[in-house]
Order: sequence, then structure tokens, then C-alpha cells
Amino acid sequence: MIEKVYGAIELGGTKIFGIIAKDRSNILTRLILPTKLPEQSIQELTTFFKEGSHELGVDLQSLGIGCFGPLDLNAHSKTFGYVTSTTKPGWKFTDIKGVFENELQIPIFLDTDVNASALGEFSNLLDQNIESFAYLTIGTGIGGGFIINGKLVHGLVHPEFGHIQISHDKNIDPFAGNCLYHGDCFEGLASGPALEERWNIPPKHLPENHPGWDLEAEYISSALMNLLCTISPQKIILGGGVMHQAHLFRRIHKKTKRLMNSYIKSKYLDSLISELITPPTLKDDSGIIGALELAIRGLQK
Amino acid sequence: MIEKVYGAIELGGTKIFGIIAKDRSNILTRLILPTKLPEQSIQELTTFFKEGSHELGVDLQSLGIGCFGPLDLNAHSKTFGYVTSTTKPGWKFTDIKGVFENELQIPIFLDTDVNASALGEFSNLLDQNIESFAYLTIGTGIGGGFIINGKLVHGLVHPEFGHIQISHDKNIDPFAGNCLYHGDCFEGLASGPALEERWNIPPKHLPENHPGWDLEAEYISSALMNLLCTISPQKIILGGGVMHQAHLFRRIHKKTKRLMNSYIKSKYLDSLISELITPPTLKDDSGIIGALELAIRGLQK
Repeated sequence: MIEKVYGAIELGGTKIFGIIAKDRSNILTRLILPTKLPEQSIQELTTFFKEGSHELGVDLQSLGIGCFGPLDLNAHSKTFGYVTSTTKPGWKFTDIKGVFENELQIPIFLDTDVNASALGEFSNLLDQNIESFAYLTIGTGIGGGFIINGKLVHGLVHPEFGHIQISHDKNIDPFAGNCLYHGDCFEGLASGPALEERWNIPPKHLPENHPGWDLEAEYISSALMNLLCTISPQKIILGGGVMHQAHLFRRIHKKTKRLMNSYIKSKYLDSLISELITPPTLKDDSGIIGALELAIRGLQK
Repeated sequence: MIEKVYGAIELGGTKIFGIIAKDRSNILTRLILPTKLPEQSIQELTTFFKEGSHELGVDLQSLGIGCFGPLDLNAHSKTFGYVTSTTKPGWKFTDIKGVFENELQIPIFLDTDVNASALGEFSNLLDQNIESFAYLTIGTGIGGGFIINGKLVHGLVHPEFGHIQISHDKNIDPFAGNCLYHGDCFEGLASGPALEERWNIPPKHLPENHPGWDLEAEYISSALMNLLCTISPQKIILGGGVMHQAHLFRRIHKKTKRLMNSYIKSKYLDSLISELITPPTLKDDSGIIGALELAIRGLQK
């Protein structure tokens, strides 16, 4: 009997990851490529899946894709499954879902990169009964993926958590924010590029004792307070390049607790806050494992 | 055959509503009472349901209760089904669910008043396929109830949307906010009592052309922007006393659109924003109809 396997793609702005896997513990083959123009990247990927499954003698059931956005995920739309108004050269209004469907003739399950990462991290939790789960990425951009009542949240479009408004005291921090759309939204104040613009140094070179990190933790905590008051998550995972600074976690635990000011009574907002807000468990694999979950769960529906 | 019916209670800080109904379109009897001490109010309610169903010759299947909070809705907790740290005299740590269960010997489904109202309004929508739905009440307090992927959001505790942080420019609005826990959170800036404290006049007497209404719309829009960026609702209903000012809706539509600044592309954030953000359709019945839905849906699980 030919073995049933699944394909997964993490399509990033600079790098592309692909895998063929039986499940998350049985990855049969991997691919890493720089992101090129769409025709070329898609060609390289379809070749990988066609030749890979042929060489392995396996049967590809479905493909999950976590992709940079914005994406059109409205099934009733003409451009359903497209990357839409991206600034990435050559990729504007590129059909992703349709092209892979045509090439591979299997079901394709597409979602945003941050939703894929959220699903990857969620699927790796010990407690699968969590009703409200949040994954945030804080890096070049800021994004959020939420799993509520067992499913990723889409709604009107998809969450754009980086663009929420948070408290910004211009007397303490005169930096106007660098979001092209909203100035001092969360992303405009706290993304990697915002840190670099404010302090004139790449965040990874900003010393641990620099006051910029306390300010950063303040903004992240303010966003987490809003998240806690809105969807009341039982688990919040913070990933992305900025969060590689491990010292940020203890600052965030302290400040989030202080901001909540015991209004909501829960041991997870008090003594166990370091269990509520944690780093990713899959590290750099959240996205690709999440894309694999999209492929597997998509078929179960 | 004895007819199967359901009971519903809306337990507010000043008034209590009760109904016995076959369904939302067939309400058989109604009760309105001032809220007294717990023993007395609970006694009046159990008598209403016992005698009411006896007189009507019907069989009460279950009871849904929308109750002021904070509530303990954690099924693993010792005080599950209690009103907990309320400031309402006599009601602190009162068992609600257990008492009605003992008295009526039927399943009791308890949730917060705002969640009940959210469910009432959601159940009255024409489009039941909405994945992400929000109901906010803006009155004496501010609260939010969200239905995502078919179910009310609970999570760690329950949403406390009134306490999110929003933009507050102290140069424009020097009012420090009146939230005892967070000062200038959303509720601290925009609830009815906050309006009264800022302008020294009850909101219902504040003239429609007073600049306070534009500021109020600004704060509500800021909160709605955060909500849109977090759970991307396909429908947002704004209820509560402050929202009886119908002119607020057009201000909120305009300001929310401006705040989003076309970042998220959707006709519902542009030309159709007045269909996205609307008043309640059940008016003052959102809470009691929602409690009835709790009773009916609770049994379907």
C-alpha cells in the first residue's frame, strides 16, 4: 500500500520552506529556498512535491500553505486564494491556491503565515482543551493568530493585531511611530524596524540594560492587556525576531500583571503569569508545522 | 402531551426580568421585579417559575440566566456558578446556579449579562454563518460579548472589553478617567458615569452639538478599531444607555473608517460600514432573549 503523506509550505518574504511529512513527527523530506518571482518559486515548489513524492513512493493527500499577506481568504471572492496588495515586487495579486491546485491536483489549504504559526504552536500544546489561544509574532512586523472554540479566527478579513492602538505617552516616548497607515499603532511603536528607527541601532545590538527594552515591554504588555480583556486567552505565545531577547519575557510578565492591576482574578494573571505568556515551543518550525496541520486538519473537515 | 418550555432570567443590578417561553416568538408569561437581597429575589423567581409552569400546565426543560458579574464560570472551581466579588450589597459570593438547580431540579445555564445580550442579538441575525460577532454595551459600565466560531468566548475568565487601553491624548482631554482599576481605560473614559464626571451633566442631558459627543465617538471608534484588528468581526452591535444617542452611530462610522485608514480592504469598512456597526435589533429584550437562548442551546449540547 502506498503511504499517505501531506505537503506543507511556509512562504515567507525572503525564504520558502517546504516539507513532505507523514505527520509532525515523521518529516520525510525538506526544502529551503530563497523567495524569487512567483512563477519561479511556484515552479520550484511544485517540482519538489511532484518529484519528492514520486521518489519517496508516497501519495500526497493535500497541501497546507502559510503565506505572507495580505491574502484574500473569502471563498466568495474572485481573487480567493490570492496574495493581494503586497509591496513585495512581482507578487501583487498572485494566485497561490489555484496554481497549486492545478499543478498538484490535490486540496490546498491556504492561510496567513501568522495563522499557520498559531496553529503549529496550538497543536503542540499539552492541553488541547484550551478554548482561547493567541500567538503573536513581534519582528519585522507584528501579527496575531488566534484559535477560539477550536478554530482559527478569520471573520471579516483576518486579524491584523499589529495595528491596534495602545497607550502612547509622547512625553515619555516622542517617537511618532513608523506605521505608514496608523503612525503609532502597536506595530508602529514596537516592531523591530520601529526599535531600530527610535534608537538608531538594530534591536539585536541594543544592550540588555538599555531603557529601550523596558519601553518595548511596556508596549507589548499594553497590547497583551487588550488581548486579555478581549478574548481572555488561556495561553499566549510570543514569537518573532524581537522576542529572541529572552529577557523581555520577565519584563512583560511583570508589566502585564501591573497593568491588569488584579482586576481579573486568576492565578494565571498573578503567580502563574509566566505559564500564561511563553516563548514558542517549536521555535523556528511553528510556521511549517502549522502549514502541515492546515493540510491534515483541512481534510478532516 | 404537556408542552415543553424554557425559563429565562435577566438578573440586573437594579431590575430582574423573567420569562417562560416556548421559543423566542412564543413568550407565555413575563415577570419584572426590582433587585432585592439575594434570598428574596431568588425566592420570588423560583415561585414565578414553579407557579407559572404549574398554572400554564407546561413542563420547564431548563433555565438560562444572564447575570451581572463578576461570575465564576470555571466548572472546576469551588465557587462555580457564583456571583463573586461584586460591590452590590448582599450579593458578594452568592451561589446562583446551584440554588436554582436545587429549587427547580432542571439544568441551569448561567452566563454574564453581556454574553446573554450578545447571544440574544446574534440569534436574531439573518445571517447565522457569521464566524466572528461582537456585542458591546456602553452604559453605566462597558462590556463586550463575542461569539466566535459558533460559541460565546470565555477563555481564561470572560472578556472584560471595557478595560482595554485606548489612545488618550491628555492635551485634548485632561480627564484622568474614572476606572478604579485602570484610570483611563475605555470604560474609564467613555462610560456614562465618565461622561457625567467629565462634563458635570448626565449624558442624556448633554446636547447633541456638544463637543463631548465627538470625543465619545473618538474613544468608541478607537476601541472598535482594536476589536476589528483582533477578532475581525463581521457584525458589531452597540447597545447600552449611552448608545441611545442615535447620532453617535454616524460619528462612529465616520471615525472608525478614518482610524482604519483603508489598511484592511473590505467594503464593510468603507461604503457599508453602517451595516457593520449597528444598534441592537431586540432593543431592551437582547438580555432576556439571550438568556432564553442559553436555556435552549444549553440542552442541545
